[in-house]
Amino acid sequence: MQARETSTDETAVTRVVDAIRGILGERLSISAAVRDQHGHDESYHETLPPDAVAFVETTEEVSEIVILCAAEKIPVIPFGTGTSLEGHVGAVHGGICIDLTRMNQVLEVNVEDLDCRVQAGVTRKQLNEYLRDTGLFFPIDPGADASIGGMSATRASGTNAVRYGTMRDNVLSLTAVMADGRIIRTARRAKKSAAGYDLTRLLVGSEGTLGVITEIALRLYGVPESVSAAVCAFPSLDDAVNTAIMTIQSGVPIARVELLEETIMAATISKEGLEGYEPKNTLFFEFHGTEAGTREQAETVQGIAGELGGTEFKWASQLEERNKLWQARHNSHYVIQGLRPGGRVMATDVCVPISRLAECILESMRDLKESNLVGGIVGHVGDGNFHLGYCLDPNDPDEIQRAHDHNDRMVLRALALDGTCTGEHGVGRGKIHFMEAEHGGALDLMRAIKTALDPDNIMNPGKILPG
Amino acid sequence: MQARETSTDETAVTRVVDAIRGILGERLSISAAVRDQHGHDESYHETLPPDAVAFVETTEEVSEIVILCAAEKIPVIPFGTGTSLEGHVGAVHGGICIDLTRMNQVLEVNVEDLDCRVQAGVTRKQLNEYLRDTGLFFPIDPGADASIGGMSATRASGTNAVRYGTMRDNVLSLTAVMADGRIIRTARRAKKSAAGYDLTRLLVGSEGTLGVITEIALRLYGVPESVSAAVCAFPSLDDAVNTAIMTIQSGVPIARVELLEETIMAATISKEGLEGYEPKNTLFFEFHGTEAGTREQAETVQGIAGELGGTEFKWASQLEERNKLWQARHNSHYVIQGLRPGGRVMATDVCVPISRLAECILESMRDLKESNLVGGIVGHVGDGNFHLGYCLDPNDPDEIQRAHDHNDRMVLRALALDGTCTGEHGVGRGKIHFMEAEHGGALDLMRAIKTALDPDNIMNPGKILPG
Repeated sequence: MQARETSTDETAVTRVVDAIRGILGERLSISAAVRDQHGHDESYHETLPPDAVAFVETTEEVSEIVILCAAEKIPVIPFGTGTSLEGHVGAVHGGICIDLTRMNQVLEVNVEDLDCRVQAGVTRKQLNEYLRDTGLFFPIDPGADASIGGMSATRASGTNAVRYGTMRDNVLSLTAVMADGRIIRTARRAKKSAAGYDLTRLLVGSEGTLGVITEIALRLYGVPESVSAAVCAFPSLDDAVNTAIMTIQSGVPIARVELLEETIMAATISKEGLEGYEPKNTLFFEFHGTEAGTREQAETVQGIAGELGGTEFKWASQLEERNKLWQARHNSHYVIQGLRPGGRVMATDVCVPISRLAECILESMRDLKESNLVGGIVGHVGDGNFHLGYCLDPNDPDEIQRAHDHNDRMVLRALALDGTCTGEHGVGRGKIHFMEAEHGGALDLMRAIKTALDPDNIMNPGKILPG
Repeated sequence: MQARETSTDETAVTRVVDAIRGILGERLSISAAVRDQHGHDESYHETLPPDAVAFVETTEEVSEIVILCAAEKIPVIPFGTGTSLEGHVGAVHGGICIDLTRMNQVLEVNVEDLDCRVQAGVTRKQLNEYLRDTGLFFPIDPGADASIGGMSATRASGTNAVRYGTMRDNVLSLTAVMADGRIIRTARRAKKSAAGYDLTRLLVGSEGTLGVITEIALRLYGVPESVSAAVCAFPSLDDAVNTAIMTIQSGVPIARVELLEETIMAATISKEGLEGYEPKNTLFFEFHGTEAGTREQAETVQGIAGELGGTEFKWASQLEERNKLWQARHNSHYVIQGLRPGGRVMATDVCVPISRLAECILESMRDLKESNLVGGIVGHVGDGNFHLGYCLDPNDPDEIQRAHDHNDRMVLRALALDGTCTGEHGVGRGKIHFMEAEHGGALDLMRAIKTALDPDNIMNPGKILPG
């Protein structure tokens, strides 16, 4: 955990805060409670409050604020719902937090083009609520009801990514405020383009370190004619993971395939009130398509599962039942938190080529037991991506250290298998010390881009790029 | 058309050529014929020969050459199969052409992970030939049998993009030599990652202006259980385009939907020996899936086509018949060339939101007739992307000017419809004067990135970024 460096010139901060107050009035807060709330996300990372929080309402306001900050070299930290998991929003060097939650308008929905444009503060659930009568939906679903701006900034994905891709694949273009206050639009609304550098993909996943994303154009999808979900329990973790692997390799266009390792499944059943399920290593499946298509997909996958000792599928065909199931899956963070009284969750994720997934998961679980740690694995196993949640005693520094050591070993294991230190949580502060090991010489390219676009390092400093 | 600027210091070129000869021996050519052949692609753009052509065999050789060029600030121009269409390979400021065709090895195929890694000179057909016994295929298919390196550098797509995406979506990672000779790998083999800036997507579509791509890891797909193709003729261009639009909007996961405007269809029938087809505005469809799935898809699309006056589908269910059909479609460039004796093709492409596609195509065809130009439209209409090929008299400067003027109007029309100046051909020299109109302030970001990664502007100078 990183201590705040108090190098900021206090009088410069005061000048900037006063100037922003001149623009925003009451929408600029320096209250300790508000600053504290904006100094942390849902992770275990230390709270690092900003000097002030600006509740912006327009892209132009963001631009004006960035121009003021740039003149005094004061950091700018964008903030959506605060649900990130690697310390993305902590004000490592102080500065102005730009809270985008008031920019919560859906600006346009082009039903005939299967796309829409939203302000950065719109959340994924809000967008899907808005789309309800259009026959369209937006599939990307990190556990939390995150903002679309935050999801773009962290290259989020979720349970549907195996079929619909991640934010990388589903952002058509972005409006962003760069480090000099300039407002840019990264691309037009055409579905594809070969016209120059892919600025959209450069900003997706840049975690606020290159610019503040204020508007996002997104791809949408038709609600499938038929959706069905099924749950299948397995005799061993190995069998569950191998069923997921073989499902992907079979080419079935599965919409979701999620692993709940037995510790998590048992806790989910009791915490989320799932009745009639077994506390075993379990896969949750979802099939999207036509009636005939989903039936065919399900038959193929049941065949694979059966061969590996999986139970008969337990179906959740009613919408309400399905929603309960997926909400339970999305609540894994809180399920893990409940694994012991007073526990605090430390969440991490890695992603490996799917052929190496069983090896990576089994070894990491073995290591977890040997390290005498409480926790469990859930995962978007169709993508080779899984999460490990540690449930820690916040007053036991030795245990916390053992968790960090376990995490280090798991990440290095993933890298050795040609995987990545994070499949979807992002780098923030938590994975920053793995960037050199993962990227080698390519890290210098990232640094060169950062320096070119943000020479004074004011955009969310202390994230992604090690010092 | 751009004249070569002869600012290059001739003695510096000589020093570099001599030094490269010391590494490559006979694999460095300064013959006029070889230089000329490497100074143009398949487009109408003027031939601009490099000072020498280096036939490299390894990434390390590319690195050594770039280091030599960087020391003397001599341009470096990568060359694959020379099938690009916007003047990408012309040596605007002279320099060393790096011919990658000898780097033609498939390095690994990971069947269980649905991915592979190839050297940049491997062509798309060579790769699919190599994959034949694995049950996998690589779907991206620009008309020509282009190299995977060139396809990555130009962000190519093709007829399958509507289902499988473009090179943007299908490159997992790249090995590239940067402007200082450094060799980098942009990402690992995991299917997704949230670990830092997306260098892969930054290099895909950068047209050699940021680095020389030498190896590419690609996503592969299982050969579908069932593939069927169908042809449908329409009473009007409007009806054909609207059928394509409604097919996409219906959510049918169509694999290909290609438009051949009647001029092109008539010429294709005679030039390619397609028998039993009508010389009308026509759509070629392809369906991928299970037996039942493709049948269901075809029924839906036939229903849409029927309502808009389309004929009964004429099926091409045998592999040989299908190959003939798609090869005919891929040969459009040559079909257009044959529209008049001694004609020379000028090809262009734009891409718009699909709801604006009919408007853009119809207006561009009307303008073509009013401009008294010979040519026609083919298109990946499922993506909102279409090509216009002019068949010009190379000795009629007035006609050539009229074609340029028509192209200018079509691009501005596409931009006004929130489209892009190129869906897949790339910028090269041909679309460089639209970059300002398309990107506005974002163009300065591209320039900043270029300057940061290639401060002396030695990497394929004169492409993408206007002076």
